[in-house]
Amino acid sequence: MNDLRIDGAALLQRLRDLARIGALDGGGVCRLALDDADRAARDRLVDWMHELDLKVGVDPIGNIVGVRAGLEGALPVATGSHIDTVRTGGTLDGALGVMAGLEVVATLNRAGITTRRPIAVAAFTNEEGVRFTPDMMGSGVQQGQLDPDTCLNALDRDGHRLGDELKRIGYAGKADWFRAGAFFELHIEQGPVLETGGVRIGAVTGVQGISWTELTISGTSNHAGTTPMHLRRDAGAAAAVIAAAVTDIAADVGGAQVATVGRLELFPNLVNVVAQRAVMTVDLRNPDDEMLVAAENRLTEIVGGAADRFHVDVGRRTLARFPPVDFDPDLVDLIVAIAHEHGHSVQRMPSGAGHDAQMFVPNCPTAMIFVPSVAGLSHNINEHTAPDDIVAGADILLQAMLRTAQ
Amino acid sequence: MNDLRIDGAALLQRLRDLARIGALDGGGVCRLALDDADRAARDRLVDWMHELDLKVGVDPIGNIVGVRAGLEGALPVATGSHIDTVRTGGTLDGALGVMAGLEVVATLNRAGITTRRPIAVAAFTNEEGVRFTPDMMGSGVQQGQLDPDTCLNALDRDGHRLGDELKRIGYAGKADWFRAGAFFELHIEQGPVLETGGVRIGAVTGVQGISWTELTISGTSNHAGTTPMHLRRDAGAAAAVIAAAVTDIAADVGGAQVATVGRLELFPNLVNVVAQRAVMTVDLRNPDDEMLVAAENRLTEIVGGAADRFHVDVGRRTLARFPPVDFDPDLVDLIVAIAHEHGHSVQRMPSGAGHDAQMFVPNCPTAMIFVPSVAGLSHNINEHTAPDDIVAGADILLQAMLRTAQ
Repeated sequence: MNDLRIDGAALLQRLRDLARIGALDGGGVCRLALDDADRAARDRLVDWMHELDLKVGVDPIGNIVGVRAGLEGALPVATGSHIDTVRTGGTLDGALGVMAGLEVVATLNRAGITTRRPIAVAAFTNEEGVRFTPDMMGSGVQQGQLDPDTCLNALDRDGHRLGDELKRIGYAGKADWFRAGAFFELHIEQGPVLETGGVRIGAVTGVQGISWTELTISGTSNHAGTTPMHLRRDAGAAAAVIAAAVTDIAADVGGAQVATVGRLELFPNLVNVVAQRAVMTVDLRNPDDEMLVAAENRLTEIVGGAADRFHVDVGRRTLARFPPVDFDPDLVDLIVAIAHEHGHSVQRMPSGAGHDAQMFVPNCPTAMIFVPSVAGLSHNINEHTAPDDIVAGADILLQAMLRTAQ
Repeated sequence: MNDLRIDGAALLQRLRDLARIGALDGGGVCRLALDDADRAARDRLVDWMHELDLKVGVDPIGNIVGVRAGLEGALPVATGSHIDTVRTGGTLDGALGVMAGLEVVATLNRAGITTRRPIAVAAFTNEEGVRFTPDMMGSGVQQGQLDPDTCLNALDRDGHRLGDELKRIGYAGKADWFRAGAFFELHIEQGPVLETGGVRIGAVTGVQGISWTELTISGTSNHAGTTPMHLRRDAGAAAAVIAAAVTDIAADVGGAQVATVGRLELFPNLVNVVAQRAVMTVDLRNPDDEMLVAAENRLTEIVGGAADRFHVDVGRRTLARFPPVDFDPDLVDLIVAIAHEHGHSVQRMPSGAGHDAQMFVPNCPTAMIFVPSVAGLSHNINEHTAPDDIVAGADILLQAMLRTAQ
């Protein structure tokens, strides 16, 4: 049974079939959560689940779960990910984890194996958080980490309510019926670490902590030519000094700390006007919560220093704060062991991005498998992973689920 | 004749009348160059000029000039400014200089004075440069400092050609017929220097040099969580470090140097994406050209350092470069002398902003009079100057023109 492998060609074909739904002209896909492309992809997924004889259920937040019965009535060994994408998404982010789950079931069906514990495959609603916030919504609600009513009442930019959109596309389920006994997620790395290291498999040890802060800096709008420097309250200069210092936080804190100002807007944003207002975000991440707190404290110092220096007011809002999550050491070891058995290079590594799997950690043993992203690209129509790497990852998923379910 | 004064109430009424054209709901005005409000204001101006028996002409770039004949056929002693505004403009920037010019003529008419040299009042096209670039366009073309065809072919954001807009509103004149023998401009300071110093009149010694640079920084878009710092090419971090260093240029160069990053945009501008591209502007000004060149050289070093540090490419485009301009010392002395006669505090000072007057400097003796801006505000609906200061400035303009024209 340890020799069992998935049908790589079938997996790649399923990925291609799914990628046609919401395909963009220049490559990549757009399936925003609960839009018509997401509905079409969900319909296809449910068809595939029925073809594989899974018992399909939908919960109130729209998660789709297909269950393959086991010899015992224990909680299933589950896998899954998401099939929604960002606006210019790739074909693998999320999709790989769901399609690989189907292929695990197909392989067990073909081999005629009935596992001791049931096997389940899930697609979670709105992992990306692009159309509705927060992200990782479906898994978060299912695993009791997010409030269902708040999420059902989330509005998109056009004022559409998430709960209404679920009804519109036919995926507002009745009962929150699903619990997992263990959870695995196969995902592309979405970063350059594996490729840069020449490593095929990432045994993900956890998800780093995330701290998102929005700063709104208020100064005074003035003529850039006529206002001496000492009479200014330049919100743009304050934002620049903060953003420049954020770049140094990573080196100051050290370790795996990353720090990014991805969004920065000036108002009125004119060449010859001292900015009255600046809005910026600071994204801090670290697998160690103590270090993440140190980075946050450093940000507080930086903001205070800039506020004093430029005589500006700084408003602060936490957009997201997730502490680091540790996956189950035994399951991580299992993934490393299987990778070695299969002759693949493997590296233990934290995940830089958030994933549905992290929502399962408080409730059951959980782990993730990464495969390399070419050039580290993701959320990008050029997102790519070598077919051999995709198949290698899915084979490890199969064996990890099979061994955990026996 | 040295006792002649303008009718302050009439000037303030004309300013109020003009401010109704393009008035914004919350105060202030919007008359973008050659839009319908600008046309209505031009039509009103031409009516006023006819009421004052001026001979009105329009040149090919749309400047409106009204001439009052003198005893001799010499070149006129001219004044003027502009009646276009920024999008959320005040009621005085530009308008004051044109309305005060009309009041100078009205005062001479009432007093039955015919000056030796003619008197002229002008309103120049597109001084603000908001809808079409460059700014100071009408005066620049008229005084031979800007190429007429390039300016007529300037396009706004919606693709409207300036020359076509002039025809549409009926202000595409035939001949470039106007030359001045001397030029004065009364303008609000648009900065805080006079108010801060408790001084009523600015005798403007010149216009500081202006250097506008646009930087386009190209890096690589990456996931902010999964991309280690050393593998990034973060256009946003490079922009922030450049903008933060620009803030220090003023202190490094010293003197009257000012340095501003008023515009900064990141792409894709998302909290969790390392920016692929940043576009920013750098506004450097100094009344001393050698110091301005030093500031520009410092910017070049800063840009080079950031490009190396963040492995980004930086494209550079000069948006504007005007060397400092010195006004005529005799006319500056005349303004100071008249201010003293009138019992007003007066300060010699450079202009921080560009003005139509600077375009006349190579061709005839030129000077400017500033009156205080409350809180230094301009390009702002709250732009304000005390009525007494407005009238004081206009009286100095009257006397300076009268004495120069005799």
